[in-house]
Amino acid sequence: MADTTIGFAGLGRMGGNMAARLLGAGFPLTVWNRSATKSARFVEQGARLAGSPREMAAASEIVLTSLADPAAVTATYYGPDGILAGARRGAILVDMSTVSPSLAKQIAKDAAIAGARFLDAPVAGSIKAAEEGTLAILAGGDHDAYVACQEVFGAISRVSYHLGPNGSGATMKLISNAMLATVVQALAEAVALGEKAGLDSAAIVEVIGASSAAAPVVKAKAAAIAERRYQPAAFTLKLMQKDLWLALSLANELVVPMPTAALTHDMVVAATASGRGDHDFAAVTALMEQLAGVTNL
Amino acid sequence: MADTTIGFAGLGRMGGNMAARLLGAGFPLTVWNRSATKSARFVEQGARLAGSPREMAAASEIVLTSLADPAAVTATYYGPDGILAGARRGAILVDMSTVSPSLAKQIAKDAAIAGARFLDAPVAGSIKAAEEGTLAILAGGDHDAYVACQEVFGAISRVSYHLGPNGSGATMKLISNAMLATVVQALAEAVALGEKAGLDSAAIVEVIGASSAAAPVVKAKAAAIAERRYQPAAFTLKLMQKDLWLALSLANELVVPMPTAALTHDMVVAATASGRGDHDFAAVTALMEQLAGVTNL
Amino acid sequence: MADTTIGFAGLGRMGGNMAARLLGAGFPLTVWNRSATKSARFVEQGARLAGSPREMAAASEIVLTSLADPAAVTATYYGPDGILAGARRGAILVDMSTVSPSLAKQIAKDAAIAGARFLDAPVAGSIKAAEEGTLAILAGGDHDAYVACQEVFGAISRVSYHLGPNGSGATMKLISNAMLATVVQALAEAVALGEKAGLDSAAIVEVIGASSAAAPVVKAKAAAIAERRYQPAAFTLKLMQKDLWLALSLANELVVPMPTAALTHDMVVAATASGRGDHDFAAVTALMEQLAGVTNL
Amino acid sequence: MADTTIGFAGLGRMGGNMAARLLGAGFPLTVWNRSATKSARFVEQGARLAGSPREMAAASEIVLTSLADPAAVTATYYGPDGILAGARRGAILVDMSTVSPSLAKQIAKDAAIAGARFLDAPVAGSIKAAEEGTLAILAGGDHDAYVACQEVFGAISRVSYHLGPNGSGATMKLISNAMLATVVQALAEAVALGEKAGLDSAAIVEVIGASSAAAPVVKAKAAAIAERRYQPAAFTLKLMQKDLWLALSLANELVVPMPTAALTHDMVVAATASGRGDHDFAAVTALMEQLAGVTNL
Repeated sequence: MADTTIGFAGLGRMGGNMAARLLGAGFPLTVWNRSATKSARFVEQGARLAGSPREMAAASEIVLTSLADPAAVTATYYGPDGILAGARRGAILVDMSTVSPSLAKQIAKDAAIAGARFLDAPVAGSIKAAEEGTLAILAGGDHDAYVACQEVFGAISRVSYHLGPNGSGATMKLISNAMLATVVQALAEAVALGEKAGLDSAAIVEVIGASSAAAPVVKAKAAAIAERRYQPAAFTLKLMQKDLWLALSLANELVVPMPTAALTHDMVVAATASGRGDHDFAAVTALMEQLAGVTNL
Repeated sequence: MADTTIGFAGLGRMGGNMAARLLGAGFPLTVWNRSATKSARFVEQGARLAGSPREMAAASEIVLTSLADPAAVTATYYGPDGILAGARRGAILVDMSTVSPSLAKQIAKDAAIAGARFLDAPVAGSIKAAEEGTLAILAGGDHDAYVACQEVFGAISRVSYHLGPNGSGATMKLISNAMLATVVQALAEAVALGEKAGLDSAAIVEVIGASSAAAPVVKAKAAAIAERRYQPAAFTLKLMQKDLWLALSLANELVVPMPTAALTHDMVVAATASGRGDHDFAAVTALMEQLAGVTNL
Repeated sequence: MADTTIGFAGLGRMGGNMAARLLGAGFPLTVWNRSATKSARFVEQGARLAGSPREMAAASEIVLTSLADPAAVTATYYGPDGILAGARRGAILVDMSTVSPSLAKQIAKDAAIAGARFLDAPVAGSIKAAEEGTLAILAGGDHDAYVACQEVFGAISRVSYHLGPNGSGATMKLISNAMLATVVQALAEAVALGEKAGLDSAAIVEVIGASSAAAPVVKAKAAAIAERRYQPAAFTLKLMQKDLWLALSLANELVVPMPTAALTHDMVVAATASGRGDHDFAAVTALMEQLAGVTNL
Repeated sequence: MADTTIGFAGLGRMGGNMAARLLGAGFPLTVWNRSATKSARFVEQGARLAGSPREMAAASEIVLTSLADPAAVTATYYGPDGILAGARRGAILVDMSTVSPSLAKQIAKDAAIAGARFLDAPVAGSIKAAEEGTLAILAGGDHDAYVACQEVFGAISRVSYHLGPNGSGATMKLISNAMLATVVQALAEAVALGEKAGLDSAAIVEVIGASSAAAPVVKAKAAAIAERRYQPAAFTLKLMQKDLWLALSLANELVVPMPTAALTHDMVVAATASGRGDHDFAAVTALMEQLAGVTNL
């Protein structure tokens, strides 16, 4: 029986789907969102509306956040109306956003001072996966806290991993996204070369989609690449630039070279600079087609 | 009923498995191999042994070749004892090696002069896939010739693609291998960063293996990476260097930039230069671990 | 006649040489340094010793700072004992450290609030150039303030540039260092390839040193490369990593791809990770020699 | 006194200037050029016109060639009318073109069979340097043969280097050009970043032109970059692509990673694919400006 009180901040496309599943699973839910309009449908379905992250935290045993970027996470956790100001002693705070491991570690320290435990637990998966409850959760932090969240995690994910102390979840997410971006960049190069050699782009993606390099993302982007249509975006170039930069920043900090990730970042940057920042990140293919002279520069 | 007479040259690990499947399917088979010792077991099972590629070709309606590199392909097709010297009018010559599209086009021209048709039809898949008949065949050349080979292809593959005129199969193979190498290089960078951040390499590969970037090759290399053991090799760094170079040469010729493939080639080169040329190409992970200072340089 | 009162914070190898020249030119000088021992020789030569950056600023018409990194700059300008707390109305504050343009712009804003003007004016040149007064000054900020500093700049540099509003000097310094690092990385690759081909590294550097690519840095590093001796360092790999990262961060922020600079950063990182962080940045040559198998990995 | 009989094949922009200087220095000269029209002005000035490379070689103690690419070199040396067919016993054959070391070694072997000695002696320097006799000669081959050419070399160059056995000159030229291209690519990135940050491109190039990275090529390209005008070309992108590819091919063969050279090749390729193949290679700056969104893609 789902009787743990839950707070949820960040009702965007990912967070909204997760919150809806928690409501559907019967958890008593208190929600907060920066722009209040998104909260309405949850209130209609029985959620309580909090006036601030602090108020939300004060009402909850487990607090979940799913926010756009590190700045939004910082703004929601800190300050007089922030989660840390309202967190109950013994509460578990779970951030599912994509942030730097150092921010995750900082929040964990500050949560401990407030008597709460923190998990960095970003999610891997699409908006559709959030809707269907088939996300993967990549968690770092206290193992007992992780175990205590299993019922909640079960409502929103098909699998969760406990990867180590605080920062481990954030690290794994950055690594995973850097890898994803590089796979798509490699696909873009493959498509551009094949097209210039006279092959059909749909055939190229189909063959690669049946090869040892056939990551799910290859199939997911096949239609977009064949039709050269990168909107609406599942995940924008701008967001991928941000995530790649977080990964490269971590690599710089830890003194780790990442040559293909760095180059992929450069191509994502060039695609963004060309005005495609709001297109899906598979639009690096459009850039490579231009650079190959398959389409006009 | 498999009554088409088949010639098969190149009885190495890939070719030997394919030839065995053709014998098993009942095709009348004439074999040739540069070093004769490998032919013996096929003769025992009913194959005829030819004294030269020319003699093999003279006895066959369909001739298949599976050779180590472009030099071996050239040596087997050309010269007074080569396949082209012996090919029957109306024969179909099928090269399943990985060569440059320009070599494929050249052989196709010379085959036409000899009254034969040529398919460049490299295969994608492991030695195990060759044994089980589950390769993918990437063919370029005359469509009717491709159709005429379906029974033969069926015995050795789970799928075949006709990708366009001669050179298309060779091109697709090079593209596919370049993509494969880049995916593994991206994985190597992910593992090195994660390890230096304190994560377990097996956990990293497991999480990526369940993500959108989870190409089959990620799972295939998981154990090798976790155990840092890159021998015996499924596909050596040296061979990958050769295939990447063929891909980059094609890209240079067609004036197509391939930044991550070029960088992957550089890392494969560095791993080879460090003495790992005969290790599996997943050993770029060992290189990245060294460059990150996770292991000693 | 040099009667403008000058404050100088940061008496390291660069700053110390600049301060000495200002004393030599007859400027009334007040100095401050985090560790007081470095101040002694300046006091002996007639400088006043300030107890804090604030006190130094309060005594000076023009305040110069030459500090190791952005953190030191922030610590020296801000806080109750910082320069901004003591700056006179009408003073000119000149930071000659290498920092991000955004930090430079921030200090400029805060200086304006305090009634002072700020120039970001990092210097290009070696410690020897600082000693000889032949640095180049790359300045951004108010043009009148720049003009008012000409006498001071004349004592320490052979040339100064006014490049635009605040941030322009910082930007130009980052660009210049990124270019410098890439030139040396290109040289390292040239040396490694040439050596493996059997050429002598001294001959390679000599020929390049007489070519169109003969940047002064090529000659400056010739002996170190030929002797494979990278200590003592003129400019360490660690510092170059920091500066390259500031440049790449600016590029990421402004959405500009810098592929060879990004790769150079990766090689600097790998060289640092191998334990050479305190070696001269020309030690990327040692890394490339290892990666080429010219020396052992 | 210049009484050695000289043969000269290849009267293009570089070769023509060299041949003119040899005539001016009083050497008895026999010329040959693929298209005969270019020979006329040399005949007017007293040169003999040969009907074939063979005939030219038969008349000469020292034979010089300055040709566009490896294919032209092969065509001029080999075949029944080639230089090797006509070379005198004891002659010295000197190729000043940019070719692969392996081709240079091959010609050297074949020359030895014909009783002649071969030097690979590509030149570094511009067309203007060829006109003024201030080229640098990078020679590989027999040292006595090199010494015997000093009077001839003196007429066309300001310096010559003997770098080792055959192939050494060709290797040094490829290395030198790869370095040159990378320096200009680094400059292009610097300009694009600086411009997007609001700096003036002329100022950027001026500051770099006075820095430790101030290679002569920086000054040579300053006007072209400031005016965004890359025609007429001193050295085209297409030729630079060819030379970079020869360098990367040598690196691949010798198993040497060259990450920034490989990336520079990719950017040269992309600039060529965008239709600028006949522009000066400094037009990588135009590409980087486009990729940064400073100008339109």
